[in-house]
Amino acid sequence: MKLASLKNPKSKDGELVVVSSDNQFYVSANDIAPNLLSALDQWSEAEPKLLKKYNDLNSKKISGAVKIADENIFESCLPRTWLFADGSAFIHHIKLVRQARKAELPATLLTVPLMYQAECGRFLSPTENIPQADFNHGTDFEAEVGVIVDFVPKGTSAEDALKHIKLCVILNDTTLRGLIPDELASGFGFFQSKPNKTLSPFAVTLDELGSAWQNGRIHLPLLVEYNKKFFGKPNAKEMHFHFGQLIAHAARTRDLAAGSLIGSGTVSNVDASMGSCCLVEKRTLEQIHQNEISTPYMSEGDTIEIKMLSESGENIFGRIYQKVQKI
Amino acid sequence: MKLASLKNPKSKDGELVVVSSDNQFYVSANDIAPNLLSALDQWSEAEPKLLKKYNDLNSKKISGAVKIADENIFESCLPRTWLFADGSAFIHHIKLVRQARKAELPATLLTVPLMYQAECGRFLSPTENIPQADFNHGTDFEAEVGVIVDFVPKGTSAEDALKHIKLCVILNDTTLRGLIPDELASGFGFFQSKPNKTLSPFAVTLDELGSAWQNGRIHLPLLVEYNKKFFGKPNAKEMHFHFGQLIAHAARTRDLAAGSLIGSGTVSNVDASMGSCCLVEKRTLEQIHQNEISTPYMSEGDTIEIKMLSESGENIFGRIYQKVQKI
Repeated sequence: MKLASLKNPKSKDGELVVVSSDNQFYVSANDIAPNLLSALDQWSEAEPKLLKKYNDLNSKKISGAVKIADENIFESCLPRTWLFADGSAFIHHIKLVRQARKAELPATLLTVPLMYQAECGRFLSPTENIPQADFNHGTDFEAEVGVIVDFVPKGTSAEDALKHIKLCVILNDTTLRGLIPDELASGFGFFQSKPNKTLSPFAVTLDELGSAWQNGRIHLPLLVEYNKKFFGKPNAKEMHFHFGQLIAHAARTRDLAAGSLIGSGTVSNVDASMGSCCLVEKRTLEQIHQNEISTPYMSEGDTIEIKMLSESGENIFGRIYQKVQKI
Repeated sequence: MKLASLKNPKSKDGELVVVSSDNQFYVSANDIAPNLLSALDQWSEAEPKLLKKYNDLNSKKISGAVKIADENIFESCLPRTWLFADGSAFIHHIKLVRQARKAELPATLLTVPLMYQAECGRFLSPTENIPQADFNHGTDFEAEVGVIVDFVPKGTSAEDALKHIKLCVILNDTTLRGLIPDELASGFGFFQSKPNKTLSPFAVTLDELGSAWQNGRIHLPLLVEYNKKFFGKPNAKEMHFHFGQLIAHAARTRDLAAGSLIGSGTVSNVDASMGSCCLVEKRTLEQIHQNEISTPYMSEGDTIEIKMLSESGENIFGRIYQKVQKI
């Protein structure tokens, strides 16, 4: 099923709605839970009720269905949460960005996931402008896939962790490249370089992915258009660590609250013809192959679109479509 | 005024109560806001109502006051929140811990605060056991002071940030020392090495600190007993960066949600007779002066007590009192 959060002036958590499989209609689910975060907190009770509503909506056996005429009515599918543990599970991306900033690769590159705790107190809505105060900060997008879990007890194994995945999303992890070198040099990791992120309008259960969900990974290309032109279509199946491993890493010494989000890191493929999911990769490849960087970071008015289509061409998560705005 | 959160089986956010100035009584404030996090979200409306209740409770002009007979009824004053930005504002502590792990000092030590985003999806209750699965992880406590803010807009100056401080707390930032070197070497900073933290039972407004609140710092000793013996009493006034500067650092590229917690980092004084607020400092001093470490990290059954007294000897925040438990 597909779930979303309507903008709600009375709640920063939005209002939970069920979205039809063809993305054409929604129906309120606030009789089941006021918002997605609280639904995740009592998922075993909420899920069958939500699923019934989804099936009734798809077969048009429900009253109160509303035609989706405007994508701007949605918050990020999960408007805020208690934890965003963002991994970096595409090894090719790690190699390229470290090459770009002349940093060494970690000795445990292939055995221990890289992960940091990211901003999750407010995700931007899927069509909200990316606010930028200082363009010297090097504004970049990062297109990722992610999963939302129910409560995960401390010490859960990677295999058991897969069972805690309740929803999938795609997301834009906006990054301020110019602030990263000083932050990493301090030893404490990212903070100012990682401002508010953006999730897709729709979160979907694993069955919506069908055979594209395999071995804890989404086997589909993530589609990125930058300023309305092709920028990348790398396949998310090339994740070195699968989501169960990322969740287990996050939960090694702490419980994960229901509603915690686990990110894949920037999707990236070794095959350069797949393009990229962030500007810094393209810039690094330009530096390597042309000895000169020709792609600048984002400026006022630049747009980024991120979406993912099923094998049969259906838009799974809706789209993230954001414009950079000087503030 | 003093605020606290009763344990509430129906809500992970607890139930908001007002505590008398002598720590002897509480009265429910769930007619004003169900929990502290929601009170902070509408602070300008909630504060005068809470203050009236506090004054009425102190002058015994209120019905429903309950004698506090058991400290175990309380959650951490704020049981969970959207952001815990933990600084490291005591330079002496930074110097000692980096010396201990033979790490260089950052070039910007005195000009840019060190800060990481910490676990805040569930704070342990003030008297809850510290769960430890593997004692090779090097379990340590870190006694800190912290402030809770209302909504802080992106780009707020350090001076303006001071006006957003609504409550003060003390806290225990439990740390797994053995996991830190590998995490910092990876470049992504702390994650597994920083499990669930613990806040004091009471959060207090700045006026409760009287003249001890000066220049954005708390000018009082933080009192630490380890296994019921004196361990430290360093004065929190030695913060190099004041709380306005820490908040401004956190808010440079993002808004801070109402209820965000900003930590000082381990309180530490240059004068060694003040003792320490964490084991690693004591161990480092032993290494320097005796060429041998004699203090081990925490084991099963070890206890840590953290509190702060006013100049007139009153317990301001209640106490954190935790025992290490093998799980």
